[in-house]
Amino acid sequence: MYYLGVDIGGTTIKAGLVEDTGRLVDQTRIPTVTDNWSALLSSLTTLIQGFQSRVSLKGVGIGVPGLRNRHTRKVITSPNIPSLTDVSLEKIVADEVHLPVTTENDANAAAYAEFICGYGSGLQHMAYLTLGTGLGSGVILDGKLFGGASGYAVEFGHTVVEPGGRSCSCGSLGCLETLVSATGILLTALELMRGEPSRLHELKEPLTSELVYHAAIDGDPVARATLEITGRWLGIACANLINALNLELIVLGGGVMAAGDILLMPAVESARRHSLAAPFQDCRIVQSRLGPEAGMIGAAMIARDSQN
Amino acid sequence: MYYLGVDIGGTTIKAGLVEDTGRLVDQTRIPTVTDNWSALLSSLTTLIQGFQSRVSLKGVGIGVPGLRNRHTRKVITSPNIPSLTDVSLEKIVADEVHLPVTTENDANAAAYAEFICGYGSGLQHMAYLTLGTGLGSGVILDGKLFGGASGYAVEFGHTVVEPGGRSCSCGSLGCLETLVSATGILLTALELMRGEPSRLHELKEPLTSELVYHAAIDGDPVARATLEITGRWLGIACANLINALNLELIVLGGGVMAAGDILLMPAVESARRHSLAAPFQDCRIVQSRLGPEAGMIGAAMIARDSQN
Repeated sequence: MYYLGVDIGGTTIKAGLVEDTGRLVDQTRIPTVTDNWSALLSSLTTLIQGFQSRVSLKGVGIGVPGLRNRHTRKVITSPNIPSLTDVSLEKIVADEVHLPVTTENDANAAAYAEFICGYGSGLQHMAYLTLGTGLGSGVILDGKLFGGASGYAVEFGHTVVEPGGRSCSCGSLGCLETLVSATGILLTALELMRGEPSRLHELKEPLTSELVYHAAIDGDPVARATLEITGRWLGIACANLINALNLELIVLGGGVMAAGDILLMPAVESARRHSLAAPFQDCRIVQSRLGPEAGMIGAAMIARDSQN
Repeated sequence: MYYLGVDIGGTTIKAGLVEDTGRLVDQTRIPTVTDNWSALLSSLTTLIQGFQSRVSLKGVGIGVPGLRNRHTRKVITSPNIPSLTDVSLEKIVADEVHLPVTTENDANAAAYAEFICGYGSGLQHMAYLTLGTGLGSGVILDGKLFGGASGYAVEFGHTVVEPGGRSCSCGSLGCLETLVSATGILLTALELMRGEPSRLHELKEPLTSELVYHAAIDGDPVARATLEITGRWLGIACANLINALNLELIVLGGGVMAAGDILLMPAVESARRHSLAAPFQDCRIVQSRLGPEAGMIGAAMIARDSQN
């Protein structure tokens, strides 16, 4: 028996066929239509029906990049997909595909995957941070995915760590997301490049966080300093989670974490420096082992567990 | 039937006789012996036995200003009372007074009082911040006092909001507590007084946060600016709680909140500016109605509920 896990991103929709054990056995991807609701719905239902024509599905879980209200079960806002505003996505899709459909914030879904099938298996208190264009987050507290009053928790990327700092897409200033994300890496690199020699000045293509990473690997001092600074901010993020929530585990995922130890090592050192000793001892900080598949697997597992 | 709630502070130990409904019917206070373990224990047992000689107690709850491990039930560290390091306080006191004794972090105890008998009654998700010499905190999540892996949560006062900022007693820099507390008010006032005319320059006694408050009431511009800035930091603290945990309520208590609206109003405005719209709408920010009695009442209610 299978569940389908769908992970709607700002540019790509990924769908994965997941066994009820959490094992991903097949996947596909299509581009996201961001500005047209009926085209988005049509592409989603076609995607799901493609799997239905081949296997028997028990349910569908959909991770959405936005806030989902647990009471109304509506997606209320999605900054990168404006057509997903105040939409009963799960009800509408369920009516089209005649299957139980559940939605959840995409980072919450990935956090759930890390809890069910990743390093968090068997733990009670953990956080998952996903470093992509922005900074997504989800936490498991007392052995359950934590949603807060309306299911909007946790938006840890929008906690302020540098008041009066960089402008954030949410309208605030100095949010963690403006520092710890691909966007944050880009802005930090551009700041450090001013007046400093760096191979980043000689690129023929627009600067990306990935190019910063490659330059760092090749020893470029500005690129290395950029990742070092980003790692230190990531460590402050971890310390704030540790001091606030006394977690057993923080899992770091998302495309940016492909940089691996070059980010992880300064992060762990900075987390140690900013944490209280006792809760720091309780907490491991690790890189995700589910990688980009966490979102699909988690959405499928949420679909599975919402039926029990 | 009564429970005794004991609130151990850095300078004073308060003890309150509490009905099982949470109503405080009698209280007393003694000075805290901070540097001598046997004198501290002796004063605690004498205090409890004084109540035992007059009424029948069903149990004792003790709030301690430090970290308490939920597994070992030991107080592991208390920055202001060095003799409370790695001490089985509840077992030792229980053996002396022949009653069930429970310990808890003092701010967690006060948070529990606000949840059981204060504005949080009937809610599922709330935080309590207590602004004293430092910044204490406790949260109720999913209708339960949240402790995390070992019971050290939450130490929200030690989340970093100004990296590289003021030195904190915990050894880190830029913790919220260095800005939002009596100590924070004092440091902010001293910074703003440099080169500015203010009646704070003319005081015959050492500057305190209370004197800053009185000067603000009398219209002193430096004192007013100090409380305005502190209020804005308090608002950032609230916004970080709101974005992270999607709470229904934040209760603000502690001696510093005697300043009332002069702190609360800039805090609410700053919280609104730094919060995501949807979770901000879910959350009220209010001043405690239990005031300095919250610690005693909460410790007593924890003693009550630990027996069920």
